[in-house]
Amino acid sequence: MSGTKKIAVLTGGGDCPGLNAVIRAVTKSAINVYGMEVIGFLDGFKGMVEKDYIPLTLETVSGIAHTGGTILGSSNRDNPFRYLTVEDEQEVFTDQSDRAIENMRELGIQGLIVIGGDGSLHIAQEFYEKGIKVVGVPKTIDNDLSATDVTFGFHTAVDTATEALDRLHTTAESHHRIMILEVMGRYAGWIALHAGMAGGADVILIPEIPYQVDRVVEQVKHRYEKGKKFSIIVVAEGAREVDGEMVVKQMVPQSHDPIRLGGAGEKLAQQLEKSAGMETRVTVLGHLQRGGAPIPYDRILSTRYGVAAVEAFARGAYGTMVSLRGSDIVAVPIIDAIEKLKNVDPDSDIVRAAKAVGMSFGD
Amino acid sequence: MSGTKKIAVLTGGGDCPGLNAVIRAVTKSAINVYGMEVIGFLDGFKGMVEKDYIPLTLETVSGIAHTGGTILGSSNRDNPFRYLTVEDEQEVFTDQSDRAIENMRELGIQGLIVIGGDGSLHIAQEFYEKGIKVVGVPKTIDNDLSATDVTFGFHTAVDTATEALDRLHTTAESHHRIMILEVMGRYAGWIALHAGMAGGADVILIPEIPYQVDRVVEQVKHRYEKGKKFSIIVVAEGAREVDGEMVVKQMVPQSHDPIRLGGAGEKLAQQLEKSAGMETRVTVLGHLQRGGAPIPYDRILSTRYGVAAVEAFARGAYGTMVSLRGSDIVAVPIIDAIEKLKNVDPDSDIVRAAKAVGMSFGD
Amino acid sequence: MSGTKKIAVLTGGGDCPGLNAVIRAVTKSAINVYGMEVIGFLDGFKGMVEKDYIPLTLETVSGIAHTGGTILGSSNRDNPFRYLTVEDEQEVFTDQSDRAIENMRELGIQGLIVIGGDGSLHIAQEFYEKGIKVVGVPKTIDNDLSATDVTFGFHTAVDTATEALDRLHTTAESHHRIMILEVMGRYAGWIALHAGMAGGADVILIPEIPYQVDRVVEQVKHRYEKGKKFSIIVVAEGAREVDGEMVVKQMVPQSHDPIRLGGAGEKLAQQLEKSAGMETRVTVLGHLQRGGAPIPYDRILSTRYGVAAVEAFARGAYGTMVSLRGSDIVAVPIIDAIEKLKNVDPDSDIVRAAKAVGMSFGD
Amino acid sequence: MSGTKKIAVLTGGGDCPGLNAVIRAVTKSAINVYGMEVIGFLDGFKGMVEKDYIPLTLETVSGIAHTGGTILGSSNRDNPFRYLTVEDEQEVFTDQSDRAIENMRELGIQGLIVIGGDGSLHIAQEFYEKGIKVVGVPKTIDNDLSATDVTFGFHTAVDTATEALDRLHTTAESHHRIMILEVMGRYAGWIALHAGMAGGADVILIPEIPYQVDRVVEQVKHRYEKGKKFSIIVVAEGAREVDGEMVVKQMVPQSHDPIRLGGAGEKLAQQLEKSAGMETRVTVLGHLQRGGAPIPYDRILSTRYGVAAVEAFARGAYGTMVSLRGSDIVAVPIIDAIEKLKNVDPDSDIVRAAKAVGMSFGD
Repeated sequence: MSGTKKIAVLTGGGDCPGLNAVIRAVTKSAINVYGMEVIGFLDGFKGMVEKDYIPLTLETVSGIAHTGGTILGSSNRDNPFRYLTVEDEQEVFTDQSDRAIENMRELGIQGLIVIGGDGSLHIAQEFYEKGIKVVGVPKTIDNDLSATDVTFGFHTAVDTATEALDRLHTTAESHHRIMILEVMGRYAGWIALHAGMAGGADVILIPEIPYQVDRVVEQVKHRYEKGKKFSIIVVAEGAREVDGEMVVKQMVPQSHDPIRLGGAGEKLAQQLEKSAGMETRVTVLGHLQRGGAPIPYDRILSTRYGVAAVEAFARGAYGTMVSLRGSDIVAVPIIDAIEKLKNVDPDSDIVRAAKAVGMSFGD
Repeated sequence: MSGTKKIAVLTGGGDCPGLNAVIRAVTKSAINVYGMEVIGFLDGFKGMVEKDYIPLTLETVSGIAHTGGTILGSSNRDNPFRYLTVEDEQEVFTDQSDRAIENMRELGIQGLIVIGGDGSLHIAQEFYEKGIKVVGVPKTIDNDLSATDVTFGFHTAVDTATEALDRLHTTAESHHRIMILEVMGRYAGWIALHAGMAGGADVILIPEIPYQVDRVVEQVKHRYEKGKKFSIIVVAEGAREVDGEMVVKQMVPQSHDPIRLGGAGEKLAQQLEKSAGMETRVTVLGHLQRGGAPIPYDRILSTRYGVAAVEAFARGAYGTMVSLRGSDIVAVPIIDAIEKLKNVDPDSDIVRAAKAVGMSFGD
Repeated sequence: MSGTKKIAVLTGGGDCPGLNAVIRAVTKSAINVYGMEVIGFLDGFKGMVEKDYIPLTLETVSGIAHTGGTILGSSNRDNPFRYLTVEDEQEVFTDQSDRAIENMRELGIQGLIVIGGDGSLHIAQEFYEKGIKVVGVPKTIDNDLSATDVTFGFHTAVDTATEALDRLHTTAESHHRIMILEVMGRYAGWIALHAGMAGGADVILIPEIPYQVDRVVEQVKHRYEKGKKFSIIVVAEGAREVDGEMVVKQMVPQSHDPIRLGGAGEKLAQQLEKSAGMETRVTVLGHLQRGGAPIPYDRILSTRYGVAAVEAFARGAYGTMVSLRGSDIVAVPIIDAIEKLKNVDPDSDIVRAAKAVGMSFGD
Repeated sequence: MSGTKKIAVLTGGGDCPGLNAVIRAVTKSAINVYGMEVIGFLDGFKGMVEKDYIPLTLETVSGIAHTGGTILGSSNRDNPFRYLTVEDEQEVFTDQSDRAIENMRELGIQGLIVIGGDGSLHIAQEFYEKGIKVVGVPKTIDNDLSATDVTFGFHTAVDTATEALDRLHTTAESHHRIMILEVMGRYAGWIALHAGMAGGADVILIPEIPYQVDRVVEQVKHRYEKGKKFSIIVVAEGAREVDGEMVVKQMVPQSHDPIRLGGAGEKLAQQLEKSAGMETRVTVLGHLQRGGAPIPYDRILSTRYGVAAVEAFARGAYGTMVSLRGSDIVAVPIIDAIEKLKNVDPDSDIVRAAKAVGMSFGD
């Protein structure tokens, strides 16, 4: 072992286009630039607890930058600090973090790169506080992580959602219908906002701007009167009415997901059929937003993040997360990224731009 | 008017990529080759009853070949022979076909090009039997029309469904899940079969081959044992179990659609979660299959169909539908196209090929 | 060895989307359905002469159906019957076919699947005539093989060329220019014809219909006078003027390619700048047409071809090539496929359709 | 006229995806938010000199956000301050800027939005210095404008170039070739750098980092020895050898383009065929990079820019250009944007990242 350093990388949480590009960049730069050894824990933090891993070499990561998914597997349920095990036929949650740390020690691993969203980064922070040399890479489709301009995977999801809007547009117009597309975004409306702008939605409903059904109906009718007998609505899954209940983010993720998808669009459709009297159809984009190959933007960002993460480790910037600020990649404390969500600012230029070109937020 | 002939074109039924390319080809060839005048009835047969139409000129149809939807609008509910009207606040169905024919006479229209699926072609046939000079153009996403090798729009729908499978694939693999994609195909499994083959599905379930849940579970487990801890299943909305009830095609379409989408995939997911004990997710592709721009294959086929339809009218081949046979466009009696569905033959080379490369049909 | 049969597969000639899907289908069906063993010769016929090969297993071919290129490598220069070797520092061509056959014998290979265009199929036929149990799979971007409706890879190339036309369209219109796209098609104009129709070209020039520059200028000026100050022209590399020299197909391919690409478009541009006085730009699509992932149509066709080729071998249909006829895959004698080219028929419905919608062929 | 303000918009320079989205955003926000009237000068500054324009209404700009090109037409040759006219059959350049200003006065136009690259922005600045209320929108495929993080159209061009690299990759690998892709970038290597990273190029040659052929050969041979018998090279058109002549930017654009495209790739190919002894092919992407529909990223950026430009005019920020800084749109003096090019910094994290994953810049 002597001089050669050995690091581990893992991917946690939901699928996200660009994971493989990060893994490749971490592996290649660790080997090419620093002569390190690299292993990958399998299925997120589970592999760290179970000591389940594969060595990562230049060969292992060859040709994966443009592929979707993660060659390491993932899990969005396994938290070493609250690890699900079965004892006496009972499901219990126990703290297995020491076991995970012991595994790292046995494997001679000095550093850990965690690629994940706020759930995984919380865990990363906890490990950091227990002395592990951790560097984070921000991953979330939803783009709702503070302390970075953009997370990788986000622009690919926007692409997918925009393409869906393009498709729904033609049918809406041919059949004089309201077409609703429900996209991801439980606490933040970034995907809905961006896809809505790119796909020419007439109404964009996001958690940050509670909507009134009447205002949505108004917009639809206004269009109808101008001869546009159809409307396209994009709604984030966490969108809510003015007097509706807000979905409260559980910053420490639980093992099971308490919220069922698909509700926001369906509810709105019922409201509109009743109030506007127009045929309305809902499409829930769901998993289609998470999968598939990353677009070039995300391939590049992922590569820069992966390389920067190893650089940060090499220069001793533990407990940080790599982050895009303007045109530059910088390292910021993980704790800054996870202590609060990055929400859409209702007064930002981008919301203003959407309104200026005639889109309604139902407010 | 004298020597100049005047024809009308309309688009009936659900949205389908390539409608605009047919409209353009009908219009351009009628004007360029035969010096005819062309009008387009709006919103399918409704425009014929209500005398609602627009003139179609070279300018009107310029630049629309690669666009989705239909510039004429459509309707999949309005049948002139059973036309919904409101009398004394009561909904009643009355025969308005004579009114439609009278409208044609008043407008000086000698021929009618009907672009539609089996519902619209049934109506076209009825008009033909009442003396109208009708030519049909076969349109259905589902590809289930007899008497033609391919309907336009089908290959675009297959593309969309294949892309969805590609996306689900990465997530299935990353999370060790079963991912189910439900696609269109109430009576025929063409989309599921083609997309399944192109998208590398592990299981393909179609109406023509009733499935047994046990066999599907077997395939999933077989893969698991070989180290492939995920499976991709594509299921046509009309897929059914061996002892399940078959969806019976109502060859004369009713005004309202009695079958709700989304059931087949959801039902299967519940069965699999129970039997295979694996996390399973369902995506219902729905309207995304109908909209969007036609792929080049469909742009070309639509153009050939449109031109051939006008040719058929010009040479007096009334009551026919244009049809692709091998590499050629021919005209066949509409009646041959609609008297029975074109189903997937379980013994065809294409099903055999899918099985040979390891795909299961659950039989 | 005893009962188990062993077959070899190779890919010859230029790159073509779908090669890997055929290799996968051959391998999977040979193993799954017939319990055969499969090897792949590397770099086309060269691997057969040099005894350079890899075993093909279910693992080897997993996940390659949607990838471009060929995992076996290819070569469009190595003909065992006229094999380039260096003796005494001199390049000489010698017959190495017996050596290739001896290699097959030593490896215990009973059958050979040749995936290739007319050059490779000629060689396949020669081996068949020397007693080798050969089955061919028709591959050519150009779609100019007789005895099959479609070759795999063709529709993907049409997609690529159509997308290029879509892109050039916007620039042509913005800058009031003539944009020329030169596509493949030395002897047959299938790509130009199909892409031209799908991409809305104003002029389509193909080898089968010699053009007159004056007629092209006429079309461009006619458009200009109607207010369309731009034109899009797609030209096959083998397009020629009425009094121009036809490119004569060398049915037995030589080792080096005597024709340089890029001439047809450039020549036409010079003619047009002079005659029409409009700014003209040429784009040569070149290799972009050959590479990349196959579209779903080609993934399916390739899979069917691969399975059918093994079936043909299994039932003893040696010396045949699999072929698409309408909706069916059949086997036809290789000799029928290669004795003459399949050209575009100037009187076919598809050319008629292109002309009917206003496209000019310069004739 | 009284209180209503009237503004004009024009698009100058080469085609660029997103122009129409800017025009739409300018028009919609001017009308919706400020109640202004909007006209569009045709064919860039030429329309301003010739008083050639169209009114822009909500209808005019409906549905154009996702289309390529510009509905206003463009020109990259007409500079009002050095305007080409023919006098006595002689081509002469005269200053027509006063005539252009007089036209604006006659039309009652108070403000001018110039959408263009550095050439057009130079002209905009000159008009501003003569008292015209100008706001600029930064447009260049090349992304080489100072004072903004990103110009619209750039990421679409990167997408196109990346897709081309993906295609060339398969052929390079199948045929053991070096494939060279020449992309735009006469003075700055942004497209080559981004596309090279996203498309997994082995060598990236850009104007900012002069290359040595020997180093390129080294990289190619190094790969060959590791069993990777192919290489992908992306070269900016302005790339040059260490001792080569740099292409000097003419900051005031001339009326005719003195540099022929296609040289850099072809020259390198000849060098490599000789030095590396490997088959090498060149593809010049050319106009394909400029045309086509903008990707969602560019649709959004264009919309924000268009709205922000009108806002800047409304609040009196004349002589500024809208600009992306991090996540925000701000206004900066035009003069800051055009006084020097934005070049790739050889020491930036993105170049370092590319090198870390094994890409060579030939230095």
